[in-house]
Amino acid sequence: MTDKSEIEEGLAFAPKFGADGLITAVVTDAKSGDVLMVAHMNAEAVAKTIASGEAWYYSRSRQQLWKKGESSGHVQRVVELRVDCDQDALWLKVEQVGPGACHTGRRSCFYRAIKLGQMGSIKLEFRNADKTFDPQAVYADKDKAPPA
Amino acid sequence: MTDKSEIEEGLAFAPKFGADGLITAVVTDAKSGDVLMVAHMNAEAVAKTIASGEAWYYSRSRQQLWKKGESSGHVQRVVELRVDCDQDALWLKVEQVGPGACHTGRRSCFYRAIKLGQMGSIKLEFRNADKTFDPQAVYADKDKAPPA
Repeated sequence: MTDKSEIEEGLAFAPKFGADGLITAVVTDAKSGDVLMVAHMNAEAVAKTIASGEAWYYSRSRQQLWKKGESSGHVQRVVELRVDCDQDALWLKVEQVGPGACHTGRRSCFYRAIKLGQMGSIKLEFRNADKTFDPQAVYADKDKAPPA
Repeated sequence: MTDKSEIEEGLAFAPKFGADGLITAVVTDAKSGDVLMVAHMNAEAVAKTIASGEAWYYSRSRQQLWKKGESSGHVQRVVELRVDCDQDALWLKVEQVGPGACHTGRRSCFYRAIKLGQMGSIKLEFRNADKTFDPQAVYADKDKAPPA
């Protein structure tokens, strides 16, 4: 499907994967609205997520399909799935099972803020950065640790 | 900077741009928590956004720096800017000035949902899809219309 108005105003799902075969997925907490993570999906991950109602992604570092929570138990139940105007991004509102989504042991991957008004060498500040679980305990089997 | 723990736990901003020189930016409405859009920034857009507190992006289709709202007046005032664990994605919580962020005339680019449990040919459903402005009127000068 290449017709712009069909893609933008139609009701046929026609995800636009990049040259790498992936589409960007933004994941927010259905309750708080916080962004938990940004991940990527290939066609199979998209199909499995839609069919099952649980989040599947594609790990670029490992080059493999990956079910969120398969090692940690921290699965994501999809409350709502949306696609954007040009169908090159997905938004998953999820119920995050367990204490967190981030492989560093935090609820969200976005635990550092950038103060505005800076120039040159930019400094970060921790924000909601307390660890909610011990990643070394949860990902004891390193072969199954989630990708960064 | 290549040390993983420095990137994940340090306080130096070291954005990881892709091979195309871009980083993914997720934009949410600071009030509602809704995802308004997903866009991309090059290094200059990141620097201008941090320095000015207003959102700048890079248009992949036009291959140029782009200040959100420069033609429509629908600028985005950044309330908070965050970076994720591996510093390859940014999250902007914004105050969206004007009626909407999407070039189709809607508040959010994510105005279609994918019902879960489907397989095969996937159908979309409109969700919060009412147009909040007339894009043809707002982007009367087509040379300045925002990228899709």
